[in-house]
Formats: sequence, C-alpha cells, structure tokens
Amino acid sequence: MRGCFISVEGGEGVGKSTQMKALAAAITAAGKQLVVTREPGGTPGAETIRNLVLSAEGEGWTSHSEALLFAAARADHVRRLILPALEQEKWVLCDRFIDSSRAYQGFALGMGDAEIMALHAFGSGGLLPDRTLVLDLPPDEATRRALVRDAGQSDRIGGRDNSFHMAVCAAFRQISSQEPDRVRLVDASGSAEIVTARLLDQLQDLLDQ
Amino acid sequence: MRGCFISVEGGEGVGKSTQMKALAAAITAAGKQLVVTREPGGTPGAETIRNLVLSAEGEGWTSHSEALLFAAARADHVRRLILPALEQEKWVLCDRFIDSSRAYQGFALGMGDAEIMALHAFGSGGLLPDRTLVLDLPPDEATRRALVRDAGQSDRIGGRDNSFHMAVCAAFRQISSQEPDRVRLVDASGSAEIVTARLLDQLQDLLDQ
Repeated sequence: MRGCFISVEGGEGVGKSTQMKALAAAITAAGKQLVVTREPGGTPGAETIRNLVLSAEGEGWTSHSEALLFAAARADHVRRLILPALEQEKWVLCDRFIDSSRAYQGFALGMGDAEIMALHAFGSGGLLPDRTLVLDLPPDEATRRALVRDAGQSDRIGGRDNSFHMAVCAAFRQISSQEPDRVRLVDASGSAEIVTARLLDQLQDLLDQ
Repeated sequence: MRGCFISVEGGEGVGKSTQMKALAAAITAAGKQLVVTREPGGTPGAETIRNLVLSAEGEGWTSHSEALLFAAARADHVRRLILPALEQEKWVLCDRFIDSSRAYQGFALGMGDAEIMALHAFGSGGLLPDRTLVLDLPPDEATRRALVRDAGQSDRIGGRDNSFHMAVCAAFRQISSQEPDRVRLVDASGSAEIVTARLLDQLQDLLDQ
C-alpha cells in the first residue's frame, strides 16, 4: 500500500492555482491524508534552487544549466518529501512535476524529451505520478488570462513570448496523447466550479480505491 | 587554431594550489595568453552553485542532487568562459574539471562513471581537456598533509574520511590508466620545485606547438 501521487500541469494563465486549492479540499474531504507541494521547490534545498533559477541575474542561465538545476531540485524533492509521504500512505498533490520540464525544456526549448527523461531517471529514479491532470486552454485564451493576472509583471519563465506558450500547450497535448492513461487533458474553460468537477471526474477511480 | 585546455586534478593535500600558481607562471612565461579558473565555479553563476554545494545546510544534498548541481555549474563555466577563451586562442588552466566529478561522484560515491559522463555530455557537450595533470600521492601521505593544513577545519567535500580519500586516489589512477594520453599521473612527492618540473615535462609537447 502506497499513497497516490497526483500532479497538476498546464501553461500560464490556465487557473492552476485556483484548481490546486479546490483539488486539495476535495481529496481531503474524501478522507485521504494529503501533502500539497510544488515544483520547482517543495523542500528547503529545492526552494533554494528555485530561487536561483527564477531570479534571472546577469545573462541568466543557459538552457542546459537550467534543465540540470531543475533536475537537481526535483531529486531533493522526490527523495526527501514525495517518496517518504507516499510510503506513509499519504496522497501527494504537486503543482507541476516532470511533465513541466518535458514541455518547457524538452519540447518548447527543443532540448529533447529523451534527454530530459534521462536526467529524471538519474536524479529521481524516473518517478512518474499515478495521475497527471493537464489544464488545457487554447493558447490565446491562456495568454489573455495571464496578461490580465500579471498586469505586465511576470517571472522569467512566465515572461516568455506567445509562440513559446503555444509550444508548451502543444507539448502537454502530445505528452497526453502518448500516455493517455496517466496524463489526462482537462478543458480549463468555463467557471472554476465546472473545471473542478471535470478534474475530479479524472480522479474518481483513484479516490474510490 | 584553438587554445589548449589544461586541467589539474588530485585528492586533498597533494599541493594543487601551489602547483597551479607555478604552472600559470610557466605557461605565461612561454608566451601563451592564459585564463586561470577553477571548479566548481569559474563564472558568476557557477560560483553561486559552488556556494550552494559546499555550504552544507540542514541534511546537505543527496549525492544525485550534488552531481546534477556540479553538472549545471560546469555547463555555465564551459559555455560562458572556457569555450570562448579557447576560441580566442587563449590557454585555459583549470583547477579541477570533469575528472573530479568522475573520481568523487562516479567512482568513490559509486554513482557510475557512465552516468557522470552522460550528465557531462548533456550539459557541456562532453568537453575534455587537452591534457589533465593528476597530482598523485599515496593516500596516507595526502591525508597527513591535509590534516596539517586544515588543522581540523575543512569544507564538506574535504571533510570526508580516509577510506573515501583512498577511493578518490584509486579513481584518478584508474582514469589515467584508461586515458593515458590525456591524463598524466605525476608524482607529487618531493619539493614543490621538483613537482613543478615533473608537471612541465608533461606539458612540454603542447607548449612547443
């Protein structure tokens, strides 16, 4: 017996923060002990690396250094928080996980999916979530929402241009088509309540176990 | 035409700092434009990662995170400093490079040489020095020198125990036996002047070019 590991993914402006809270409430209401966490970060060491990556000093990081830093942070997060919680039969709900590295670095930045998965195999034993929920919006709609939310302020990752966001969106769709059982694409349009209901539909089999 | 890339390796207490200075003076005296650098570190980004790795906060890093952090720092160092200098026909003299990761992480910590080289291929295109000089001492003698030097104070890497240092020393010998043309084992016993002369013998063909 082990807890369930759920990750939530999606590009900028798809309503991920709101849905993370709603999912956490629903999983807890279903009687599961739950740990809520995020990437990059989630442990003291990984949060230090998060700060290093997201604060663009000087020229910023090369894409190869960035991918290695994300993998280093994830290795700490997996071994110090995620795996111990799952072994204690807790559920883990994580805001972004490996599929973000695959979509952003592997696909949109063109570093290669196999290369990103090789770093993940090295650092984190290739751990995959039991279920990954991808909040999916047409990229134009997601960009509009992100612009409204940030009002021009954004961190380095979020601050990339529209064609990049479209590539990320396409990458999540491709990952979902390759691993349809694990990675579920969920329509993120409509009210927050409707989206939450769609997400919970995709978790029901695990909640009922 | 490209400059020559020289790395200097060796376990703790073999006199590496002294010999780095002597080598830099000799290479400059031979009329070469020289950049002296070190790992982990060498660029602002890589030095930030160095501080993260060498300051052991809390439980410290897992060995997998540590290896990924070293690879991230090296990727920055290679792309921002080493390759540009070599392309400007400068020589680069580096205090530690990939063979330190191989000896410490790959061999002594048992993470595997192929795994460490795969991270290096990803981050830094697998760049190898034109010549690597390994300062070699019997481990007992190196440990004695390190204890005298540090008088009980040491960073996290240097502070490991004697069997670890013996494993590192054995690893450098093994790497040298596998790549004898690039990796030259140099006897580090005797006076500093004698050791410098031995090191320069192993660089003479490159200095004469």
